[in-house]
Amino acid sequence: MRKEFVVIGLGRFGGSIVEELVRLGADVMAIDSDPERVEDYAKIATEAVIADATDEEALKSLGLQNFEHVIVAIGDDIQASILATLILKEMGVPQITAKAQNDYHAKVLHKIGADVIVHPERDMGIRIANNMMSNNVLDYLELSDEYSIMEIKSNDRIAGYSIKDLDIRANYGINIIGIKRGDHIIISPGADEKILLGDVLLVIGAIVDINRFVNRAMT
Amino acid sequence: MRKEFVVIGLGRFGGSIVEELVRLGADVMAIDSDPERVEDYAKIATEAVIADATDEEALKSLGLQNFEHVIVAIGDDIQASILATLILKEMGVPQITAKAQNDYHAKVLHKIGADVIVHPERDMGIRIANNMMSNNVLDYLELSDEYSIMEIKSNDRIAGYSIKDLDIRANYGINIIGIKRGDHIIISPGADEKILLGDVLLVIGAIVDINRFVNRAMT
Ligand SMILES: Nc1ncnc2c1ncn2[C@@H]1O[C@H](COP(=O)(O)OP(=O)(O)OP(=O)(O)O)[C@@H](O)[C@H]1O
Ligand SMILES: Nc1ncnc2c1ncn2[C@@H]1O[C@H](COP(=O)(O)OP(=O)(O)OP(=O)(O)O)[C@@H](O)[C@H]1O
Ligand SMILES: [Ca+2]
Ligand SMILES: [Ca+2]
Ligand SMILES: [Ca+2]
Ligand SMILES: [Ca+2]
Repeated sequence: MRKEFVVIGLGRFGGSIVEELVRLGADVMAIDSDPERVEDYAKIATEAVIADATDEEALKSLGLQNFEHVIVAIGDDIQASILATLILKEMGVPQITAKAQNDYHAKVLHKIGADVIVHPERDMGIRIANNMMSNNVLDYLELSDEYSIMEIKSNDRIAGYSIKDLDIRANYGINIIGIKRGDHIIISPGADEKILLGDVLLVIGAIVDINRFVNRAMT
Repeated sequence: MRKEFVVIGLGRFGGSIVEELVRLGADVMAIDSDPERVEDYAKIATEAVIADATDEEALKSLGLQNFEHVIVAIGDDIQASILATLILKEMGVPQITAKAQNDYHAKVLHKIGADVIVHPERDMGIRIANNMMSNNVLDYLELSDEYSIMEIKSNDRIAGYSIKDLDIRANYGINIIGIKRGDHIIISPGADEKILLGDVLLVIGAIVDINRFVNRAMT
């Protein structure tokens, strides 16, 4: 079964969701009240429709209740975002993701039943801040408040040593679960594997422990 | 040595960078031309200053050349963003991260020497689309165009089976590098480890192979 989505609001956020969903093989109906924006997505989306998302009849005649997941990506017009979400919820759309402009907006969306609430600018700010804080940490996957998997770029302080030499597990309580080397990935590297300059270590562990490793062993 | 940053433009994106950097223990100078926005960050940032980032003398008198990393988080006023980046580059700021509104803006920022260019709305749209495509994939870390680590929520199709039972490595060429179970994480689980309902599997492998696992073994 192909996945069927509706994206309402074709700004940069909503527009990039449409493009990526289509790229991933989904069917996407793209909706905006602005004919120019709809025009921009006519060739990309499965279907592109001019409609006002605060118009209940319009949404019903488009059959939005038959889609699995609707994304409300309307930004500045907070009232329109809230009203559209409310209508979709009453229509029985099983999964609604909505963009929030601020905490007040998020609270209302939550109360009326949006399933997932996204703050694109804020969430990306948090990611960027974390990337900036450590030049060696390229990216990360937050597993919980305490644990992460981090991509750590090796430097001349650790290159040339094997995993055994550094004794990372004993010293820091963290584990190297993979090494990205050029185009390929060594999974579960053995203790004798030597770290090369330019390797990217995939490390799992408590965030404080990984940071301790980066700040002590690598600086 | 503490990390020293400057954030110019205190909208949602720039503002959340300030908050997160401070939370992570950095010193941050927060700058905006709008006195109200500066007021909002006076208590959060190490220093909060009203200044026009297109005013070369103002930036020099603030000593921005002495900071390690300046973030230009001005959005709608593309000209101001470009001029500010140009001035910072000429002042010799070692690391400049800039927000781009569109591809044209990004191209100019790149040409004048911004080190990292961010599209918050677009990048978050791509993340959200990936999260929406698979209800079982909670989050992911893209290792390359081909490889990822994904957090996959177990369901009743795989719960109760051991890793050996599912023979995931042989059947899909992917590896379970960890299991999140409640508050703790089992690292490098053995072949006899039984998957429980609610477990979150940390899987590494080619993205197509992981998707094949989710679409075949789990549905
Ligand atoms: N009632 C509505 N029905 C349908 N579409 C709407 C409605 N109100 C606003 N939109 C559309 O939502 C889209 C996103 O609106 P927003 O105000 O967030 O613009 P934006 O800042 O360009 O978006 P982004 O921040 O994602 O780039 C716009 O294309 C707008 O036309
Ligand atoms: N020349 C300038 N010097 C300093 N600050 C500026 C300058 N031009 C704009 N700003 C500030 O940049 C901030 C971000 O501007 P933007 O137009 O992106 O607003 P925004 O949409 O509220 O931001 P966001 O999308 O991050 O929420 C604003 O607070 C604005 O006052
Ligand atoms: Ca916007
Ligand atoms: Ca996460
Ligand atoms: Ca904006
Ligand atoms: Ca990445």
